[in-house]
Amino acid sequence: MVATSTTSARLSVRQRGNSRPPATRFDKRLGQILAHATDVFCKKGYEGASMRDLSRASGMSLAGLYYYFQSKERLLFLIQKHTFTTIVERLKVRLEGVNDAEQRIRIFILNHLEYFLSNQAAMKVLSHEDDALKNGFALEVAAIKREYYRICVGLLDELKRERGLQFSTRIAVLSLFGMMNWIYTWHNPRVDADADELARQMSEMFLRGVMNGARTRR
Amino acid sequence: MVATSTTSARLSVRQRGNSRPPATRFDKRLGQILAHATDVFCKKGYEGASMRDLSRASGMSLAGLYYYFQSKERLLFLIQKHTFTTIVERLKVRLEGVNDAEQRIRIFILNHLEYFLSNQAAMKVLSHEDDALKNGFALEVAAIKREYYRICVGLLDELKRERGLQFSTRIAVLSLFGMMNWIYTWHNPRVDADADELARQMSEMFLRGVMNGARTRR
Repeated sequence: MVATSTTSARLSVRQRGNSRPPATRFDKRLGQILAHATDVFCKKGYEGASMRDLSRASGMSLAGLYYYFQSKERLLFLIQKHTFTTIVERLKVRLEGVNDAEQRIRIFILNHLEYFLSNQAAMKVLSHEDDALKNGFALEVAAIKREYYRICVGLLDELKRERGLQFSTRIAVLSLFGMMNWIYTWHNPRVDADADELARQMSEMFLRGVMNGARTRR
Repeated sequence: MVATSTTSARLSVRQRGNSRPPATRFDKRLGQILAHATDVFCKKGYEGASMRDLSRASGMSLAGLYYYFQSKERLLFLIQKHTFTTIVERLKVRLEGVNDAEQRIRIFILNHLEYFLSNQAAMKVLSHEDDALKNGFALEVAAIKREYYRICVGLLDELKRERGLQFSTRIAVLSLFGMMNWIYTWHNPRVDADADELARQMSEMFLRGVMNGARTRR
């Protein structure tokens, strides 16, 4: 059970770079199964969900599920990998050609909120099953998450350099992730602001917070 | 199975008001069992944990556990109730006689971080098993959480009035909870700041963030 077997290799090829190959029927089916599995993990928790639950929800036979995915753990791995790879890839495209440090942080926040608000079940699963994966799976996901974390650290370090600011980058970055990730516990699309407006307000609050009282540009 | 049976009534009496009766042997034992149950829920998740696991961890017989606590759900309920009641009670004592709006928010942040950093397992259980309780249990916990949320809303509304500020109180309060609660995912006592220092830095960041660039007092 290694992370580079056929399914996950195809998934990562599809996600790499800007020139995506057209999604195949297989890719679409894979995406659907991951979405169903995400819903099941979201409702029952990773420990509480069985392969039988996952089979029922996805409409794939139990035998088929074992054949293609081998284990519940590998399904969770694919969900986590898929999510973080997609977010990082989109972010890189959006940051291209933008040089202003403040603007780059605003893009980071918008990109994160936009993804998570349209994938709230995935967001809950990622937050709750953070430590459910072991060994190779855990290492591979940790590497993508570390890359994402480091991009954010880099953006804040740019801002500090550009404006001559002093603050703990670690606490600032993790506070920002907290503000953004916590929304899965409270965001109600019927009454709360959408991703654009939420990103604008959180960006204002966060940027003012780290910029020592210097006014931010609108 | 109602929330006002003997054990939970004694628990809430012990937690009410400033003049606590001395903790009885029973109270201590109850506290220990809740602490063990918290660890088990933290490690295995609520769905994944069995009464047998809880019995093994707490050193209480399975029969005894059912006799005193009736169900796994009631144990989770007591953990949630105990945690939020304790936080709210401590907060009220600390806010007494403090009139400055900014200072009151600093106290709120310190009180929250102090409790959660010394009870990280409880923090994870509260975050993850937020929606595991049903009916009467869920309603009672929701009422305490609502009171806590409203205290924070009140503190921010005071600040807005006092300084003539304009911002969405809801987004500010929930961003603050996110910043604070997320620490259970990253705080490492060996390398990270303690509750005092973390509260100071988060208070600075948050207060600057909502105060529209007006400098905060140190």
